[in-house]
Amino acid sequence: MIWQAEDIYLDYSNMMAEVIGDEHGITFEEIEGIRDKAGEVHRRVQHERGDDKLPFLNLPYQEGIGEIKCVVDDLRGSAHTLVVLGIGGSALGGRALIAALGHPFHNLLPAEVRKGPRVFFLDNIDPDTITGLLDVLDLSQTVVNVISKSGSTIETLSHFFLFLSLLNGRLGPDWRKRVVVTTDPSNGPLRRLAEEEGLVSFSTPPGVEGRFSVLTPVGLLPAAFIGIDIEGLLDGAALTDKWCREEELEANPALLNAALQYLAHVKKVKGISVMMPYADSLREVADWYRQLWAESLGKKKDVQGRLVYVGPTPVKALGVTDQHSQLQLYLEGPYDKVITFMALGSFSHFLKIPEGGSWGEETAYLEGKSLNELMEAERRATEFVLTKNSRSNCTIYLKELNPRTLGGLFYLLEVQTAFAGGLYGINPFDQPAVEEGKRLTCGMMGRRGFEGEGEEIRGWIKGRNVYKVPR
Amino acid sequence: MIWQAEDIYLDYSNMMAEVIGDEHGITFEEIEGIRDKAGEVHRRVQHERGDDKLPFLNLPYQEGIGEIKCVVDDLRGSAHTLVVLGIGGSALGGRALIAALGHPFHNLLPAEVRKGPRVFFLDNIDPDTITGLLDVLDLSQTVVNVISKSGSTIETLSHFFLFLSLLNGRLGPDWRKRVVVTTDPSNGPLRRLAEEEGLVSFSTPPGVEGRFSVLTPVGLLPAAFIGIDIEGLLDGAALTDKWCREEELEANPALLNAALQYLAHVKKVKGISVMMPYADSLREVADWYRQLWAESLGKKKDVQGRLVYVGPTPVKALGVTDQHSQLQLYLEGPYDKVITFMALGSFSHFLKIPEGGSWGEETAYLEGKSLNELMEAERRATEFVLTKNSRSNCTIYLKELNPRTLGGLFYLLEVQTAFAGGLYGINPFDQPAVEEGKRLTCGMMGRRGFEGEGEEIRGWIKGRNVYKVPR
Repeated sequence: MIWQAEDIYLDYSNMMAEVIGDEHGITFEEIEGIRDKAGEVHRRVQHERGDDKLPFLNLPYQEGIGEIKCVVDDLRGSAHTLVVLGIGGSALGGRALIAALGHPFHNLLPAEVRKGPRVFFLDNIDPDTITGLLDVLDLSQTVVNVISKSGSTIETLSHFFLFLSLLNGRLGPDWRKRVVVTTDPSNGPLRRLAEEEGLVSFSTPPGVEGRFSVLTPVGLLPAAFIGIDIEGLLDGAALTDKWCREEELEANPALLNAALQYLAHVKKVKGISVMMPYADSLREVADWYRQLWAESLGKKKDVQGRLVYVGPTPVKALGVTDQHSQLQLYLEGPYDKVITFMALGSFSHFLKIPEGGSWGEETAYLEGKSLNELMEAERRATEFVLTKNSRSNCTIYLKELNPRTLGGLFYLLEVQTAFAGGLYGINPFDQPAVEEGKRLTCGMMGRRGFEGEGEEIRGWIKGRNVYKVPR
Repeated sequence: MIWQAEDIYLDYSNMMAEVIGDEHGITFEEIEGIRDKAGEVHRRVQHERGDDKLPFLNLPYQEGIGEIKCVVDDLRGSAHTLVVLGIGGSALGGRALIAALGHPFHNLLPAEVRKGPRVFFLDNIDPDTITGLLDVLDLSQTVVNVISKSGSTIETLSHFFLFLSLLNGRLGPDWRKRVVVTTDPSNGPLRRLAEEEGLVSFSTPPGVEGRFSVLTPVGLLPAAFIGIDIEGLLDGAALTDKWCREEELEANPALLNAALQYLAHVKKVKGISVMMPYADSLREVADWYRQLWAESLGKKKDVQGRLVYVGPTPVKALGVTDQHSQLQLYLEGPYDKVITFMALGSFSHFLKIPEGGSWGEETAYLEGKSLNELMEAERRATEFVLTKNSRSNCTIYLKELNPRTLGGLFYLLEVQTAFAGGLYGINPFDQPAVEEGKRLTCGMMGRRGFEGEGEEIRGWIKGRNVYKVPR
């Protein structure tokens, strides 16, 4: 039970009743039972795409890549450091790209070896982190890429105003040459600033939510800074697009995996979705996926407005590391999880434990073995024991990690999320619940127009002190 | 509804029915209903402590701290880099300590500013990560601390044999001066090697599982290398120990929080336990806790041998970052979570958004405000909207982060885990399920005595090819 293409396959055998039994595995009848609904969801997505309502699907064919490369070529010479200011979807894609395809200790390499500037993503407002970053930055050689789709994200603006003042202090009017803005093409404070000050800027494509924006300038610009082949990413996504247009469930990996994950959740009560790559390079891809899956599918109302409170909880784990942390729970705890392994057919490097390098007979078996085969042995052993214990799991396998396969993987998981939204019957492209918290924060920070919210939350905090009974 | 001491409090108001309603909140009757059982668990723990069966409880009063400081003083002069080889409980404590109390960009600071050597934890066997690390290491100035309680952890030994051969190649017989072994006091391959070669070594206290070992040489030695006040850690733990001996439920923060988390799970069906610090420095404490909670409580059998398949699933999140990734799900998805915020009363640094530094009226409200107050406003706003939506949450609040409060926090969460194990009726100090995977890995790697396991898994992998239907 494998969907397979040249560089990638999805093995879902261990989610199936035939392998792990009827209680926890999906039966062929259950797959038959969802076939029509899946077909309908697929047709609706194709239809909306035709109506230009799902612009993220057309990102593999975007223009403007030349412009990104031009700007990056221009700036790389003078930039020892790139600081990306953004949060959520404005940071997770770029982070994932650079962790996957960059050197694992990129920022520690000497400048002459490093492919491009040091890169830092500031995606929290912790004052200690930012102060610490300023200790290691040479502001005179720093480029800032500020990213906010709306142009008004409070965390990002706070960072940005701080950096503007620092760059201005160091460089005077030349600060304008060190800032690149990525924001809405026509609206919001950041767009206005970019226009007034004549800054280099890129547009976030309208209608593409942050969590679907890794293959826009949001993710591509930081990636290009360290020399990642961004055209390769898009080529890989375009190839995946072909598969994701297939009508037949078993021929379409995004539709198939959406259906399997959905069935495991609603038919087999597995509400926790663990993404467990067996490669450090994919660790931040799991983080990126965590936002994609949670924010898209965690919804109170379905598209008809009925209360449903749905959404699987994504969890990030790392093989083999988390075998020594989470595996005990996955093997013996409640049967409430589906584990998705991500595996690589090969790593970039081959590392052998030296002959004669062990001490004593007990450990001699390791001599001459490679870490590559150990990694593979541990993954297969983990897969085997989970399966033996009827624990639902599947594997997304990439022959190797390169821009094409990574671009394809991003696209695959995005389209899968769109399909899953259809199966759950919710809108995967909004995030209505987070607005109230944002308004309350603005209220506490004294933003005009949010006085009511400010009063509401201050009143609440004050009221709570009655609970404070000192010992 | 607060348990409070001088430097720390636990506010559990928002887990209670009085605040979030009967359906999702814990009632006072439910607390009364568990009071006797909690008391019993508490007495049993005290009793086992008296019988010397829970040695982790006595770690605050350990001797041998002077020896750690001595060794570190000796090695710090010659070591530009410390590489810690360990996985799971042998890495997570040290990582958490250094992330919490070290400089946020410690490894990027120039040597003359840095407090101690660069520190790398190798807790995965990814060949690309290790090759990458070797690109940035000066082996002639590197100290290796190899940590394995059993002395036979396959991942750690693989790393270690690799490093031994590299150090030997670079330094000749002097490699012995650059290796510190932390392992069982008398058994296992690592202890044997340390004795045969006359290496500096420390002992893991017998009976202290890896996940309870942060306050042993496992965590303390790496921490001491970057100048962390390890006596302060133990002082803080000793202070917490006093509270954790209290018999009365509401006076004992570990027993109280264990009872609350347990009630939220079994009475209110909240099987997902989110730990969400609002401070980058506590991010890895959440990772450490994730192992502690999952591996201790995820158990198939209770202490009477009955099948129970219990265990909450810990999830790590980060404020404010994950407001832009997970909050939508936490607010609108299933009511299956308890969110524990960790908050700091103050950060080490104060950072202000400059006056006159914003663009336009819409953003002027940020001028002169601090990132510190923004962080606090966002945390309170998130707490408020969760509570308004009857989403169970509580807050562990530290007045500030320092060795004393951090040591106290570690100890508190460890004791809480021991109590929770008692409430769930399982043994929190074993991890029986991970053994089979280890044996299968050994089988695949050709270790003598594991031929049966090797055959078993190879047969399984081979048999699976029947599912592989190429498209």
